[in-house]
Amino acid sequence: MGKVVTLGEILIRYSTEKGQHLEDSSRLFFHYGGSEANVSIGLSGLSHDVSLLSVVPNNPLGQGALQHFRKYGVRTSDVYYSGERLGSYFVEVGAGPRATSVVYDRKHSSLAELTQTLWEDDTLFEGVDLFHVSGITPALSDELVDITCDLMKRAKESGVRVSFDSNYRAKLWSLEKASSVYKQLLPYVDIFSAGKLDAINLLGITPLEETASTVDELTYYSQKMQEIYPNISVIYSTTREVVSTDENYLQGNLWIDNTLYQSRNMHVPYIVDRIGGGDAFSAGLLHGLLTKDEYQHSIEFATGMSVLKHTYSGDSLYISEEEVENFIQSDSSKINR
Amino acid sequence: MGKVVTLGEILIRYSTEKGQHLEDSSRLFFHYGGSEANVSIGLSGLSHDVSLLSVVPNNPLGQGALQHFRKYGVRTSDVYYSGERLGSYFVEVGAGPRATSVVYDRKHSSLAELTQTLWEDDTLFEGVDLFHVSGITPALSDELVDITCDLMKRAKESGVRVSFDSNYRAKLWSLEKASSVYKQLLPYVDIFSAGKLDAINLLGITPLEETASTVDELTYYSQKMQEIYPNISVIYSTTREVVSTDENYLQGNLWIDNTLYQSRNMHVPYIVDRIGGGDAFSAGLLHGLLTKDEYQHSIEFATGMSVLKHTYSGDSLYISEEEVENFIQSDSSKINR
Amino acid sequence: MGKVVTLGEILIRYSTEKGQHLEDSSRLFFHYGGSEANVSIGLSGLSHDVSLLSVVPNNPLGQGALQHFRKYGVRTSDVYYSGERLGSYFVEVGAGPRATSVVYDRKHSSLAELTQTLWEDDTLFEGVDLFHVSGITPALSDELVDITCDLMKRAKESGVRVSFDSNYRAKLWSLEKASSVYKQLLPYVDIFSAGKLDAINLLGITPLEETASTVDELTYYSQKMQEIYPNISVIYSTTREVVSTDENYLQGNLWIDNTLYQSRNMHVPYIVDRIGGGDAFSAGLLHGLLTKDEYQHSIEFATGMSVLKHTYSGDSLYISEEEVENFIQSDSSKINR
Amino acid sequence: MGKVVTLGEILIRYSTEKGQHLEDSSRLFFHYGGSEANVSIGLSGLSHDVSLLSVVPNNPLGQGALQHFRKYGVRTSDVYYSGERLGSYFVEVGAGPRATSVVYDRKHSSLAELTQTLWEDDTLFEGVDLFHVSGITPALSDELVDITCDLMKRAKESGVRVSFDSNYRAKLWSLEKASSVYKQLLPYVDIFSAGKLDAINLLGITPLEETASTVDELTYYSQKMQEIYPNISVIYSTTREVVSTDENYLQGNLWIDNTLYQSRNMHVPYIVDRIGGGDAFSAGLLHGLLTKDEYQHSIEFATGMSVLKHTYSGDSLYISEEEVENFIQSDSSKINR
Amino acid sequence: MGKVVTLGEILIRYSTEKGQHLEDSSRLFFHYGGSEANVSIGLSGLSHDVSLLSVVPNNPLGQGALQHFRKYGVRTSDVYYSGERLGSYFVEVGAGPRATSVVYDRKHSSLAELTQTLWEDDTLFEGVDLFHVSGITPALSDELVDITCDLMKRAKESGVRVSFDSNYRAKLWSLEKASSVYKQLLPYVDIFSAGKLDAINLLGITPLEETASTVDELTYYSQKMQEIYPNISVIYSTTREVVSTDENYLQGNLWIDNTLYQSRNMHVPYIVDRIGGGDAFSAGLLHGLLTKDEYQHSIEFATGMSVLKHTYSGDSLYISEEEVENFIQSDSSKINR
Amino acid sequence: MGKVVTLGEILIRYSTEKGQHLEDSSRLFFHYGGSEANVSIGLSGLSHDVSLLSVVPNNPLGQGALQHFRKYGVRTSDVYYSGERLGSYFVEVGAGPRATSVVYDRKHSSLAELTQTLWEDDTLFEGVDLFHVSGITPALSDELVDITCDLMKRAKESGVRVSFDSNYRAKLWSLEKASSVYKQLLPYVDIFSAGKLDAINLLGITPLEETASTVDELTYYSQKMQEIYPNISVIYSTTREVVSTDENYLQGNLWIDNTLYQSRNMHVPYIVDRIGGGDAFSAGLLHGLLTKDEYQHSIEFATGMSVLKHTYSGDSLYISEEEVENFIQSDSSKINR
Repeated sequence: MGKVVTLGEILIRYSTEKGQHLEDSSRLFFHYGGSEANVSIGLSGLSHDVSLLSVVPNNPLGQGALQHFRKYGVRTSDVYYSGERLGSYFVEVGAGPRATSVVYDRKHSSLAELTQTLWEDDTLFEGVDLFHVSGITPALSDELVDITCDLMKRAKESGVRVSFDSNYRAKLWSLEKASSVYKQLLPYVDIFSAGKLDAINLLGITPLEETASTVDELTYYSQKMQEIYPNISVIYSTTREVVSTDENYLQGNLWIDNTLYQSRNMHVPYIVDRIGGGDAFSAGLLHGLLTKDEYQHSIEFATGMSVLKHTYSGDSLYISEEEVENFIQSDSSKINR
Repeated sequence: MGKVVTLGEILIRYSTEKGQHLEDSSRLFFHYGGSEANVSIGLSGLSHDVSLLSVVPNNPLGQGALQHFRKYGVRTSDVYYSGERLGSYFVEVGAGPRATSVVYDRKHSSLAELTQTLWEDDTLFEGVDLFHVSGITPALSDELVDITCDLMKRAKESGVRVSFDSNYRAKLWSLEKASSVYKQLLPYVDIFSAGKLDAINLLGITPLEETASTVDELTYYSQKMQEIYPNISVIYSTTREVVSTDENYLQGNLWIDNTLYQSRNMHVPYIVDRIGGGDAFSAGLLHGLLTKDEYQHSIEFATGMSVLKHTYSGDSLYISEEEVENFIQSDSSKINR
Repeated sequence: MGKVVTLGEILIRYSTEKGQHLEDSSRLFFHYGGSEANVSIGLSGLSHDVSLLSVVPNNPLGQGALQHFRKYGVRTSDVYYSGERLGSYFVEVGAGPRATSVVYDRKHSSLAELTQTLWEDDTLFEGVDLFHVSGITPALSDELVDITCDLMKRAKESGVRVSFDSNYRAKLWSLEKASSVYKQLLPYVDIFSAGKLDAINLLGITPLEETASTVDELTYYSQKMQEIYPNISVIYSTTREVVSTDENYLQGNLWIDNTLYQSRNMHVPYIVDRIGGGDAFSAGLLHGLLTKDEYQHSIEFATGMSVLKHTYSGDSLYISEEEVENFIQSDSSKINR
Repeated sequence: MGKVVTLGEILIRYSTEKGQHLEDSSRLFFHYGGSEANVSIGLSGLSHDVSLLSVVPNNPLGQGALQHFRKYGVRTSDVYYSGERLGSYFVEVGAGPRATSVVYDRKHSSLAELTQTLWEDDTLFEGVDLFHVSGITPALSDELVDITCDLMKRAKESGVRVSFDSNYRAKLWSLEKASSVYKQLLPYVDIFSAGKLDAINLLGITPLEETASTVDELTYYSQKMQEIYPNISVIYSTTREVVSTDENYLQGNLWIDNTLYQSRNMHVPYIVDRIGGGDAFSAGLLHGLLTKDEYQHSIEFATGMSVLKHTYSGDSLYISEEEVENFIQSDSSKINR
Repeated sequence: MGKVVTLGEILIRYSTEKGQHLEDSSRLFFHYGGSEANVSIGLSGLSHDVSLLSVVPNNPLGQGALQHFRKYGVRTSDVYYSGERLGSYFVEVGAGPRATSVVYDRKHSSLAELTQTLWEDDTLFEGVDLFHVSGITPALSDELVDITCDLMKRAKESGVRVSFDSNYRAKLWSLEKASSVYKQLLPYVDIFSAGKLDAINLLGITPLEETASTVDELTYYSQKMQEIYPNISVIYSTTREVVSTDENYLQGNLWIDNTLYQSRNMHVPYIVDRIGGGDAFSAGLLHGLLTKDEYQHSIEFATGMSVLKHTYSGDSLYISEEEVENFIQSDSSKINR
Repeated sequence: MGKVVTLGEILIRYSTEKGQHLEDSSRLFFHYGGSEANVSIGLSGLSHDVSLLSVVPNNPLGQGALQHFRKYGVRTSDVYYSGERLGSYFVEVGAGPRATSVVYDRKHSSLAELTQTLWEDDTLFEGVDLFHVSGITPALSDELVDITCDLMKRAKESGVRVSFDSNYRAKLWSLEKASSVYKQLLPYVDIFSAGKLDAINLLGITPLEETASTVDELTYYSQKMQEIYPNISVIYSTTREVVSTDENYLQGNLWIDNTLYQSRNMHVPYIVDRIGGGDAFSAGLLHGLLTKDEYQHSIEFATGMSVLKHTYSGDSLYISEEEVENFIQSDSSKINR
């Protein structure tokens, strides 16, 4: 299996029970999450050797974060104590026609207030196959733009593939700011998770006419992005149809070798927890790129892994390759006994 | 916003966890409810100034009721200590094809045993826009028939609009008894929540042939009711299609100015708690009548508010106008982040 | 009502909350179950006098099992203390597209290690109408093959009808072993719960061509089984369509008097707990055979009872005949209030 | 072991979690209790054959009560469906210096509204050793005074010993009323649970001077009570020292054959739930009277059983004779492993 | 009763279950607290008319805070939406010999980042009897020093008594900084909650020799503080003896009219939640000052109220005067039934 | 810090809530434990590099065990998949005067059925400072006697100190069997955890007269044990006084260099969970031996760590050296804020 390094923030998530107002709750569920952190756990479950680069405060909340990631096999030797708080967010879990709503309280976090890189060790990328980061990390501060850029550069120099998940969050930065940062980062990127809106809003690609089919759209925007950044060899995304908060359809899209591979359009008729679904998808897809060259299978695998994430609570999914394989090959929900 | 007075009983509701027999439960959920009380909380959330007229026993259960309503901004200065108990009911929550079942233990409650009105203050209806009561209240005792009638009369005399929700409960009184009481009350009513069965069984209107469309039916019964009680200017109801305990369709109907306004037929694909859905609908509709003259919007708003109630547990829904507006204008269940 | 004796193992079931990994759980739900034990509770709820033959360890877990069955009216005077443990199984509850998964830890249980029959009393079958056992019991040990066979024989000699539920479990024994045991047992059986796979794999019946309709299949296999064992007068089974872990369709099939009776294909749009659904079906069906000769009604009743089991958590369903009747006659999920 | 009949009301108890205000609770614990019902479960655990005479409403709450008592081996064939509700009470669990507080809602219960006896069967007391009832039962209504009196009389006529636990509750009746009823009942009583206050307030015995020792007091009041009712052969009570809500000392007193037997003064350094402690004491004591003539041991046993009740939650204690014996013979709290 | 205005921050408290590491918790209890906010709820329960001056973010957490305080009768019309977060703290609940530990995450809160006063309305102190604030508020920012000072000044000018609870928190500011701010504020203070350490460290009073009795110490420091600030007419404090995390002794001290009043030394043999004990004490004491001139009774009342707080979970105690009176007059923990 | 290898079984523990009968529980707490496994977590928390030798079944329960130990930093690279089950035990948590009781179901576990060593790698003890095992491991099977003996031998040969905790369990083997095995093992042991009963019953040492002081006893038995096994350089034990299930006193004893070091007699006035207290003590003591030569401090540290374990639920304690140091140096239970 591969050796992976990720960079990103660990967040605390507080969530209500389904059907409860946040205002009326006297207990909240407490989970650790964070986009790249979730990808790390996903890849660790699939047997990769994953190390997370991050910072946490030196208090029980930070220590608990380390224990959490260690439990799922993620190496935390490059997570340092620094700063004073973990960013957090509050989830009022939706139901049926009512969407889940999120309140953030993530400013002034340990990572957001980091003033200089802590990962200067020359051996950081030794033997590493992949470096993964999302757009959330550089959105946290100008310092993190520099740190992200520096690590991407060093990864490239060490022959490590660079994976970047756009993951644009309007609450963190403007489209203008993000666009300008992306221009700095994308020249180093090999694997890019981005969709139509990223292409238009962040890379400035002219929108295709509205009547185009999904396949045409995916092909058009992928090609256009590769025109600008020929270094990008893989582009992936999901197409999600929201029937209700509890029922979605999910289809994975993988653009590689100038070809579009699409998974089946998978039905998720009952959703336990959608948060982290995209990160599980990334983990599944990166797993495919790290281990095989069967692209059709890789996109099925990634989508299946994302679907499975929807059936578990918590931000991340720690599950074996075998379980995902069994899932995408089975076609029923019989009890296994 | 408006100033509203309501009259009604506060009930305790004990409910099981989904999938549990009442007989096997060792813990029960404990909520305060009651039809008019629920309407009060709904209107308070929508920023109206609402005062509840009721009585509770002077013990921790009664005091807890006051705290509950105060939490949601309902004025309780006209709730008095009297009698010995709060009525209660037990809910074994249904699932899928199995309906929710309810056991009542509401006899001998403080309100049912009230022997004379406690609300004789001349200023009770000063500046008030609306007086709301449901058919459950006069069903509790003969004294409450008199009290209800007296309050309706005084409201009318003070220029206050009177709202009456039929809410016929066969376990509380016979159709005959109810019919005769309705004859006393309806001459004071401006806004009437009633459907086909109320029209036929309680107002004695000749049934329309079975083949009539829903629109024709709603029109026919509304017109007939207004013929008898020309003082009634607004008639409203919901049409509910029960797919299963967890999935319903809901459509709101509003008859005003000799015109029928119907909301979209809204899908509730996952129901957390249906109880109080009708009261939330009333609250939403009365809000529209208190604030605007856009009838089509009012019925959409009321139905949307009822749908939202189905996604929260508990008998009442305390939610802002903005949240309901966002809900009826959105068309997906995306996570808000 | 009838008098029934059953023979079988009492199991402990540990289950997760929906959406939780077994590996991440810090609390587990704790229920008693076991196929014949579940049937016993079902029949007791339907007002039959049921006695369970079993053994449990003499410790709080065994004593708790006795209390559990006594609570639901099952006589436990023929359950003895013996051996050292109750078998158990762990359920990671599935959701949507992900199936529920089960891990067994049932070896070396009190019943599996029983070395000789404890039920030699001549009066055991006095006044008894039915003796019920499933294929799980003889699968536990060679001694239990003998004990089962002996009890069937004695039942027959006492004029008691013998009911046998095939319930083949690949984790307990091979098809070969099971086939040879079934040859011993089936000559004593009156009522047989078995489907197509049992007929082919365990009774060696030649498969019908694949294009046959379900009705043709059920007829063919039933007739063939009766050809081999003409003593079998009743054959029953369910046809289950798994839409997702949370949504199934269920149809009951009853072959009697050379006629196939099928229930409506019942929809279970929301499943709380599917485990024990087959045992509730058996209980409902045996109830019909014990009390009436209305076969069409019996199969509706049995299927309705199984559907209701899907809406309650726990392995068994204790519910009155009236509740099942109301359920199969109603056609909506209105709140009963 | 003995055969016992008891008469009394089954109550529902709702309790808070420790440290919670009743007003702030959103879930309540739900238990069945009632003084004589608790004694019944206690005696059943000690292997006596106990039948409870009572009435419950024919709804899930009443049915659940039957299941509850059946679980603990109490025969419920003489519990009838009648009336509309179970009485209930609410417990705000105290802590440390704050006492537990109780709110009753028990009026209009099925038993309190029973208008005539349901237990006229001549065979009711056949083979019975003991009939037990407490002062709570006749306090519920005049009809229950008659029913209690009639059953005591019939018990005596059948040669059954009659046990009466004074259990005076000021919230149910006045001292005057109780005194006059006790005059009717006590001539039939063999075993009387009563203390100093009962002697003075209900039997009109002149108080002893305040400086008397406890032993002198117990002797004096016992002798005086026997002077009035020479039919009473056994008088018992407990002396409780309340250090705090969580810590008590408990000593049992047994007056028999003109001799006072006192248990050790047992320390309960941590109390889980004190409610039902007196009923467990009665069960333990009646057990001794039913099985042995070792009075010193009986009072130790009864007190030990009461102490054990304090360490379990719920109103009743179902525990074996062996466990109580082990407890009173051990002198430490080592883990048994 | 009195009319009271308080100024202070509303905090969120997350706490573990007893015996759980914060690092291992997957659910946390969620309460609202804050020193002055707790005092407000305490005074409201004692029937005073209390208005809280504060700011909260305009999100569900802020809205929930408003509902919480409204539930307990505290007026929130002077709580404004401002800033982005509520400060929070995490409590790992101790047990026995292990102390409870607290982690703060309160920086950058809405109140701490408030840049100018929001309470300029001239009528703010109209009819008000008391203005209460603690040292935590000015510790949050320089702006809050000014705001606190300004409000104290205006209160004095309006003839309102000013109450100041020292409540020094080393994690918020240095002794030097606090000392200098106290010099600004204390000239306006009538009622001062402060102990020996405050006197020495913050007011610079020369320590008394170590051998002095507690009474001498309390007298000495009170007199010295009054020498510097003759405007201070009341000084109060508690003396707490910590036997273990679960067992404390508490004695209240009140210095007024040059006399020291001390409560009994009250035993708290079992502590549910100690946090907020000091605020409940303040509420009880201010209640006495607002309503009576019986100083000995006032200090008993205040200490009793603090003891009661220790028996309930949550930061604040909402309890009636009658309940506190009953508590301090009773001397046992009998069940009230 | 040191490098440590341990050998032992991982157990599942199911426990009730305090005050619940096992028979009445519908949910059980689920923890991983096992004596040596607990010591491993304790040492890992104190910053040692610990590797556990064990086997678990290849199913979610076994995988969950690995995650659990990994979370707390214990290396699991020498835990293999083998066998079919984890041993388990059930804990009915005691209270006050009632002891906690334990039911085992540990036969046929993966480790007990291991037929040959899996740890033959020559490098196993490279750089290792300590090998720890308890008497429970060889008690499981004859094969485990051989495996334990072989590992002790190889450890000695590699210059690794061998630690052996007697931990005699009567439910697992007889005194005779244990004595004979101890004769095989003790010649390899450097550090021995054993008390008076071990010395007498397992090593055959003549009992000292009963009137000897504890210090004399500890000295006598330690010297006698060293006479037989001069290779033993350290002997340690605890003296526990059980006031009640919730309150103990604990004193640690360390015999080294012919000197007895005793800790203070520490009070545990409130016990959350006593299980694992001895293992935490061992971890604390071995930590002292691995890092310092201050024996008096080491025994205080070990006892303090054990006391802290009593205040947390679960079998093991993961806590830093600093936290233990703070605890033994502090003398109060003030809130740290």
